[in-house]
Amino acid sequence: MRKNYLLTPGPTPLPPEVCEAQARPIIHHRTPQFQAILKEASEGMKYIFQTSHDVYILASSGTGAMEAAVVNLCSAGDTVVTVEAGKFGERWTEIAKAYGINCEVIKVEWGKAVDPKEIEKKLKANPKIKAVFTTLCETSTGVATDIEAVGKAVKDTDAVLVVDAISGLGAIDLKTDAWGCDIVVSGSQKGLMLPPGLGFISVSPKAWQKIESAKLPRYYFDLKAAKKALASTDTPFTPAITLIVALCEALKIMRQDGLEKIFARHKKMADATRAAMQALGMGLFAPTAASDVVTAVIVPAGIDGEKLVKTMRDTYGVTIAGGQAELKGKVFRFAHMGFIEEFDIIAGISCLEKVLKQMGYKFELGSGVKAAQEVFLK
Amino acid sequence: MRKNYLLTPGPTPLPPEVCEAQARPIIHHRTPQFQAILKEASEGMKYIFQTSHDVYILASSGTGAMEAAVVNLCSAGDTVVTVEAGKFGERWTEIAKAYGINCEVIKVEWGKAVDPKEIEKKLKANPKIKAVFTTLCETSTGVATDIEAVGKAVKDTDAVLVVDAISGLGAIDLKTDAWGCDIVVSGSQKGLMLPPGLGFISVSPKAWQKIESAKLPRYYFDLKAAKKALASTDTPFTPAITLIVALCEALKIMRQDGLEKIFARHKKMADATRAAMQALGMGLFAPTAASDVVTAVIVPAGIDGEKLVKTMRDTYGVTIAGGQAELKGKVFRFAHMGFIEEFDIIAGISCLEKVLKQMGYKFELGSGVKAAQEVFLK
Repeated sequence: MRKNYLLTPGPTPLPPEVCEAQARPIIHHRTPQFQAILKEASEGMKYIFQTSHDVYILASSGTGAMEAAVVNLCSAGDTVVTVEAGKFGERWTEIAKAYGINCEVIKVEWGKAVDPKEIEKKLKANPKIKAVFTTLCETSTGVATDIEAVGKAVKDTDAVLVVDAISGLGAIDLKTDAWGCDIVVSGSQKGLMLPPGLGFISVSPKAWQKIESAKLPRYYFDLKAAKKALASTDTPFTPAITLIVALCEALKIMRQDGLEKIFARHKKMADATRAAMQALGMGLFAPTAASDVVTAVIVPAGIDGEKLVKTMRDTYGVTIAGGQAELKGKVFRFAHMGFIEEFDIIAGISCLEKVLKQMGYKFELGSGVKAAQEVFLK
Repeated sequence: MRKNYLLTPGPTPLPPEVCEAQARPIIHHRTPQFQAILKEASEGMKYIFQTSHDVYILASSGTGAMEAAVVNLCSAGDTVVTVEAGKFGERWTEIAKAYGINCEVIKVEWGKAVDPKEIEKKLKANPKIKAVFTTLCETSTGVATDIEAVGKAVKDTDAVLVVDAISGLGAIDLKTDAWGCDIVVSGSQKGLMLPPGLGFISVSPKAWQKIESAKLPRYYFDLKAAKKALASTDTPFTPAITLIVALCEALKIMRQDGLEKIFARHKKMADATRAAMQALGMGLFAPTAASDVVTAVIVPAGIDGEKLVKTMRDTYGVTIAGGQAELKGKVFRFAHMGFIEEFDIIAGISCLEKVLKQMGYKFELGSGVKAAQEVFLK
């Protein structure tokens, strides 16, 4: 017997309804039967994105949706701002550079959030900046960006605001329209409680204006084709049918709970996790601007961070994430996102305590679990 | 009660093992557990592709894999040959043109296959041609290309041969290495008996040489990144986990049967379908070069082709495909590919007969079914 517990920042565990939906006999995508499903999914995504504009569903991972944002908005030689506060912010720069775009990079110390004033400064210094590429939740550090403030900094300029909300959408608040996010991209395997394989992208009228004149080559990720197809409840290419059927199930659950309740649940789980880590005497990597989707914890001195994560996973079946890139071995990332409830958090902390004890770290057994319980009891 | 029967050229019905595999609790992709699955899937795809070279698994539909072929091989201003014998051949031209590539188009009458001599002529006339883009099975017309002969025409030139085998791979023979196919692309929802959402691409050493110097911008579909990742049993971006888990199940079934037996089954189903249509007095749209994956049938005079397909689907739950683009209403396409057995063919023909009778078409009820039965009895 081997039971797996998943506490990683994507994929997150799947509700049984979502698992079951994928297993249904497949239907053809050019039928009224599938059109009804696609319509339900697209409408539901507007609710999740908090937008009145279309949300396009792509057969790709979230990175594909990021590429769609870049290649549809820009022309070679354009100048954009990219915010690098971790591995996923760096991805914006990588994609933009691959397409011959000049990047004015705002480097933010890992573990900190960007100061919206930095963005304002860049936009004032160069009115030709076409777009600002940011990250809602930087999964590599656990930090959440204040997108509302960033939106204010971008709103009255000619630039459009692009937000990578792959990690965070449907788990923490992101008011696409109200906060002035022109393009928001996301993926299926995070707050949406689905397997990976779907990318999402919303587009504001201001962004459509840029798209009209953008000259970068594109075909698979061409948003004009996606818009035209969706107008007749269709997709330009074969959609990932079973994942979209599953998306409808996830959306049913999310709409029943409501975004407010979902965000509150994530906040409580994050608070409990942070309290537990501190009770265990461990430091948080991002004590300020911590996101409610994943908590990065500094590996205590004398403990092998990679071995900790591996032992939890391979010996006990509890998967959390290690540090990425420059944080490898230095932090571990304990996620509390998606189809996760308080007792999953307790289970995860309990396993963490067990392995830390076995590795010789000094603390009172049960103190992390108790600290989390106290938060949940409130 | 409503029972659905799927006889379309993608998606095809799914084996129960494939359905079930998707519904399993999801695992994280950066774990030894998933690496074992990815390895099994990649190795299995070499068997299906009949290649000794790597096959990369992309999170995209087949069109994404087509785009990967174009953007990795070419630079803007390159000249290539595209073979247009239907809607999917035209897609090669569309993608190439979107990326600023000059296309020497070989237009083939719909319903016919390309004459490999035409390709030879083009290559002789212009030794700078970088690649020849063809289609194994043109789903829109039901025609199969003689890829072996095309391979001979391309082999000793500087050009590489690219084959869209989205429709056909794992259903009809395609010897990637032996026939000199440098890049073969495919998708999951056809012969592989999976839902859509995975793209596949194999690359020969000759193609890698071109890729080294190709300058088109790319990121999500960058094959160098895919190669580097696969060398450590990884993917550059989050893979479509549940679909890859399901792929392993489909591969188990396919390896147990063996390609030879699978191809023989498809041939028998195609023969039976063609015999049935002719017994019903209907003409085949592609009497020569017909593929064994889908049969395009000319709608009899006086019968509304679109209504025929809709009635079969919406009244009786039997989904076949109508004609695409210029063939809309003029043909219907009856697929016999993937998880389909002789009795599914009989069921489909029986429904076709019922609706044809109701629409006033004159023929002897049961004559199509009987003709198919005779083929199957042999």
